[in-house]
Amino acid sequence: MPCRFGHGGDVFTAQAVSGGPVLDFSANLNPLGMPPEVSRAALEAACTQPGYPDPLCRALRAAIARGDGVEEEQVLCGNGAADLIFRLAYALRPRTALLTAPSFSEYAGALEQAGCDVRYHFLDRARSFDPDERLLDGLEGVQLVILCSPNNPTGRLVPRDLLLRVALRCREAGAVLMVDECFLPLSDRPEGGLAPWLEEYPNLVLLRAFTKSYAMAGLRLGYCLCADGELLERMARSGPPWSVSAPAQAAGLAALARPDWPALARAEIAQNRPGLAAGLAELGAEVVPGQANYLLFRLPGVTDLADRLLNRGILIRPCGNYQGLSKDYYRVCVRPEQENGRLLAAMREVLSWRRPL
Amino acid sequence: MPCRFGHGGDVFTAQAVSGGPVLDFSANLNPLGMPPEVSRAALEAACTQPGYPDPLCRALRAAIARGDGVEEEQVLCGNGAADLIFRLAYALRPRTALLTAPSFSEYAGALEQAGCDVRYHFLDRARSFDPDERLLDGLEGVQLVILCSPNNPTGRLVPRDLLLRVALRCREAGAVLMVDECFLPLSDRPEGGLAPWLEEYPNLVLLRAFTKSYAMAGLRLGYCLCADGELLERMARSGPPWSVSAPAQAAGLAALARPDWPALARAEIAQNRPGLAAGLAELGAEVVPGQANYLLFRLPGVTDLADRLLNRGILIRPCGNYQGLSKDYYRVCVRPEQENGRLLAAMREVLSWRRPL
Repeated sequence: MPCRFGHGGDVFTAQAVSGGPVLDFSANLNPLGMPPEVSRAALEAACTQPGYPDPLCRALRAAIARGDGVEEEQVLCGNGAADLIFRLAYALRPRTALLTAPSFSEYAGALEQAGCDVRYHFLDRARSFDPDERLLDGLEGVQLVILCSPNNPTGRLVPRDLLLRVALRCREAGAVLMVDECFLPLSDRPEGGLAPWLEEYPNLVLLRAFTKSYAMAGLRLGYCLCADGELLERMARSGPPWSVSAPAQAAGLAALARPDWPALARAEIAQNRPGLAAGLAELGAEVVPGQANYLLFRLPGVTDLADRLLNRGILIRPCGNYQGLSKDYYRVCVRPEQENGRLLAAMREVLSWRRPL
Repeated sequence: MPCRFGHGGDVFTAQAVSGGPVLDFSANLNPLGMPPEVSRAALEAACTQPGYPDPLCRALRAAIARGDGVEEEQVLCGNGAADLIFRLAYALRPRTALLTAPSFSEYAGALEQAGCDVRYHFLDRARSFDPDERLLDGLEGVQLVILCSPNNPTGRLVPRDLLLRVALRCREAGAVLMVDECFLPLSDRPEGGLAPWLEEYPNLVLLRAFTKSYAMAGLRLGYCLCADGELLERMARSGPPWSVSAPAQAAGLAALARPDWPALARAEIAQNRPGLAAGLAELGAEVVPGQANYLLFRLPGVTDLADRLLNRGILIRPCGNYQGLSKDYYRVCVRPEQENGRLLAAMREVLSWRRPL
């Protein structure tokens, strides 16, 4: 059976391997879980709606537009953000695309399926993997650029200035820039999105999702914003018409009625991230100073950490399959303090026999 | 905003037009609705599972394999059958494909997105749109054939002999045959599927869904069966990894525990279809003798029936956008007797002022 390993959140494989319940640090979801109103709404829709979901997601798109300060026509919903990445790849069919490395592996997965030649701009570890204006040099001959802010797996925000300079260059060259803002609501700069620049840059596609900020990964709901209606139309045609289920639409509407939910999570993340980072550093990890709800770290020379933690029922994300990262990189999400403590304790155990203190 | 009109089941557009609740004859769902166990399962999953759904749909695929008498490795689940049609189109990228006309419009939609040249074998109205061996003449130079049994919108079953002859020819020519069996469980020959021939024809892809037989359209769950693991793997890579939501996976499992549900619906359909067909004929319709839970009919010269019924709060499927059908063709599903009566009464009203009796 088809399988793609190397994503976060595959607790099902993890449970099969570990033989029991798993504490999941690999999926970067809101540590508060799903708001009760959201699961209630999904639940009601699951019960009461045997018919097809609204293929145009009308009510949901109107609510998203209000929340994000854009026009309804600028919103396209999808079956999770990944659905929209594939739709963009199939709609554009770029000959060449530029990605940063490391970044979310699904970009390359989708682009390669669309027959695209993927070019990488490798980010500098010594600079916390922050891109700078050298990124602009790589834009020539490229029809699509995908940037992620905060970046996955580094958790680093990309400065807005740089994003806008890339958008401008792309606009001049007739290229599209997708900025993945899926983790923005759980980051240190939640208001830093590019929605106000959509009209100025019709070549700009913003990718957003409920998956992370409302812990709705099971329901599958993402969307993108773009002022180029013709491009959205092509994306809509690039996949099946009823891609967003009725429970997901209802849940999205309920989530938008709880705009405080990501903020509550941010407060908790802000409180717990420093302790987790310090604990990791204490164990010898080089921790990238992440600005989101997850942390990337390197344990020089240790390449079996994920397997060893899984034997202890803890799932983290090994990052060796990210372009530009070696096998001793790992990503963990910031969870409630006590659970972070369990992770650190398990790591201490795993590492102690390797390097007796 | 992107929109594709001309599908059944768009009650949301219909409600906006009619300004009130709508009686939906356009979506061909199980007239009994969703089994209570299924909505309960979906509901529980919606509440309890904030994490990612199992990308490999392990438990569900195992249950499908048991139910359909195939191997787990031969099952690929998708976000509704339409998702799998797009995945097949993108995975194969056929230069030329053969469809019958009329048939489900999403085949051509997906194939055109994949850059495929779509060729049509036009079915003969005088023969109830039943294909015969002349279909075999059109196979030359084709990499993909899609047939639907029972066919949408005609409701006619394709003889198994003919399907197997096409499968054989395709196998010899290195072409793939997809047979859409989504409506089979609600048809007069529910046991007529081609699953026992998968091993013999690794070029055979069977498309099945819970959408119709369990009225789970809102939840989005379809699957396909194929003995060619490499093709399934390519289809899996052709779209996002977590395409089947957690509620859909749970609902599918619960549905498989109620194999009697489509049978109960068939009994009701068998009871109500003759009356609906007779009523339509009485009103001057040429009714195709459908063998499924819906009926295709022509009202010669009447092209505004759907609009007029919508003004009365009744949604039917105008079929003018099907290849090979004129604008006076319509499709209605078989609903409970009293509702069928409402449809016939409304049609009588609409038609009476046009052609006073």
